[in-house]
Amino acid sequence: MSLRLRPGELGILFLIGAAGGLVGDAGHVQSGTTVYLDDATPFVWRSALWFPILVGLATASIGELRLRLAAPRPGFDARIGIAAIASVLAIYAITAVILDAPEEPGTVLVAMLAVLVACWLADGRAAIICGLSAAIVGPVAEIVIVELELSRYAETADSLFGVPLWLPALYFAFGVVAARLAELLVARRGPG
Amino acid sequence: MSLRLRPGELGILFLIGAAGGLVGDAGHVQSGTTVYLDDATPFVWRSALWFPILVGLATASIGELRLRLAAPRPGFDARIGIAAIASVLAIYAITAVILDAPEEPGTVLVAMLAVLVACWLADGRAAIICGLSAAIVGPVAEIVIVELELSRYAETADSLFGVPLWLPALYFAFGVVAARLAELLVARRGPG
Amino acid sequence: MSLRLRPGELGILFLIGAAGGLVGDAGHVQSGTTVYLDDATPFVWRSALWFPILVGLATASIGELRLRLAAPRPGFDARIGIAAIASVLAIYAITAVILDAPEEPGTVLVAMLAVLVACWLADGRAAIICGLSAAIVGPVAEIVIVELELSRYAETADSLFGVPLWLPALYFAFGVVAARLAELLVARRGPG
Repeated sequence: MSLRLRPGELGILFLIGAAGGLVGDAGHVQSGTTVYLDDATPFVWRSALWFPILVGLATASIGELRLRLAAPRPGFDARIGIAAIASVLAIYAITAVILDAPEEPGTVLVAMLAVLVACWLADGRAAIICGLSAAIVGPVAEIVIVELELSRYAETADSLFGVPLWLPALYFAFGVVAARLAELLVARRGPG
Repeated sequence: MSLRLRPGELGILFLIGAAGGLVGDAGHVQSGTTVYLDDATPFVWRSALWFPILVGLATASIGELRLRLAAPRPGFDARIGIAAIASVLAIYAITAVILDAPEEPGTVLVAMLAVLVACWLADGRAAIICGLSAAIVGPVAEIVIVELELSRYAETADSLFGVPLWLPALYFAFGVVAARLAELLVARRGPG
Repeated sequence: MSLRLRPGELGILFLIGAAGGLVGDAGHVQSGTTVYLDDATPFVWRSALWFPILVGLATASIGELRLRLAAPRPGFDARIGIAAIASVLAIYAITAVILDAPEEPGTVLVAMLAVLVACWLADGRAAIICGLSAAIVGPVAEIVIVELELSRYAETADSLFGVPLWLPALYFAFGVVAARLAELLVARRGPG
């Protein structure tokens, strides 16, 4: 079974995801939203090394999933890709900024912003499946990480089995954005 | 005088408004932005029963007003409707999240987001009249509700005769969105 | 060397910038983000008189710079101009609202919103140069103002030589918006 994305494209998605994960996670660590309990692994900036690696792998995986689900849209526009990345990082930063706000309106805010991102970037079923997959796999993985006592969330952000109520919505936006980036990478290949 | 919207369409607008009102108000109650003083009426989630009913009626009324003011634009796109609803719920959630922030920059933020929603969704005069009507009638109704001691706002959010300074801007966005939804419902009828 | 913008157009940009500066600065003063130490000059609303004048002059200067860098796009749309102004004032208000949030995720949020504004409004190199010029000149000017003890920032917002870490991003968005407004003013002239 061959991959739909080329090695270089998977590498680009991995790097975008790892870098974005580092930026977002640094905000979570600084705000106290996330606390690492794992001192065994080396740290990159404010994250344990495994965190950006996992986010990078997830980004490349979702990109590959997107291409297996349906044909990507043609048309390369770097601006859409940059804006897509900026939008999910903005939502990520909002989840750190609202730490002391009540969890429910914060969750509604994050969820509605994720819906706006999907209305803007998703091309129907394929992108939504990518978003929903991320919204399930991501929080489940983080619940396992919390159970393994590698990290924990602040007490004001742990009401979904130890992870924040807004985490699925953040991952949903992430999945939709990763799907769009995969489309753009294919469109960038040009004809032939 | 017959109605421009069909009964089923008015029902859809009522339900969207009532559901959105419940979601937004739950955030306000959780953050302490709103406190219900009325224990006589039954509660739905965190709202007194009359609140979602009033918001639902307002949504249907603004939809009907929109169609009386000017011909609606053709073209049905569920994505625009979903994004419109998400945008006003996002602003609603922001008003709960910023409870402890100073009222003036919070009001500027909500007002500017309402302007962005209008620039995006409004088709000129008709939608603006719907927004302004909501921005006047909504806060006046809430001032009466506060005067009747059915509910009150937090002390950091009551400087406009007992209601928040940002309330007219939130209602303005709500009115523009309700007007757009009415247009979409008519466009959904299809030719014939 | 003649100016590309007409006197009336420079005046419009000056007034928009001065008014926007007053609105945004009032939020910063109310939240305590900015504190004026200068009691010698008269105040307009909550700002020392020189602040809106400087912002107005910067707005007109960036508009003129934009027209010297490249031909403006045709097509006048008041809605784009209004939305552009609203977006930078919304970001300005966010910087006041997040005063008590940790500085890094707040800075990421402001920076990503500035990127979104640029993806939406910038027409490539010329607008980006305007944004970057504002992102350099604005904070440097404010650092000088702080050094002159005319004003200071709150302790949670002074880690960039006495000014906030998010200040360059706010000025970047401001520069991109001023450039877009200059384009719209020229497009408004009509043919001939």
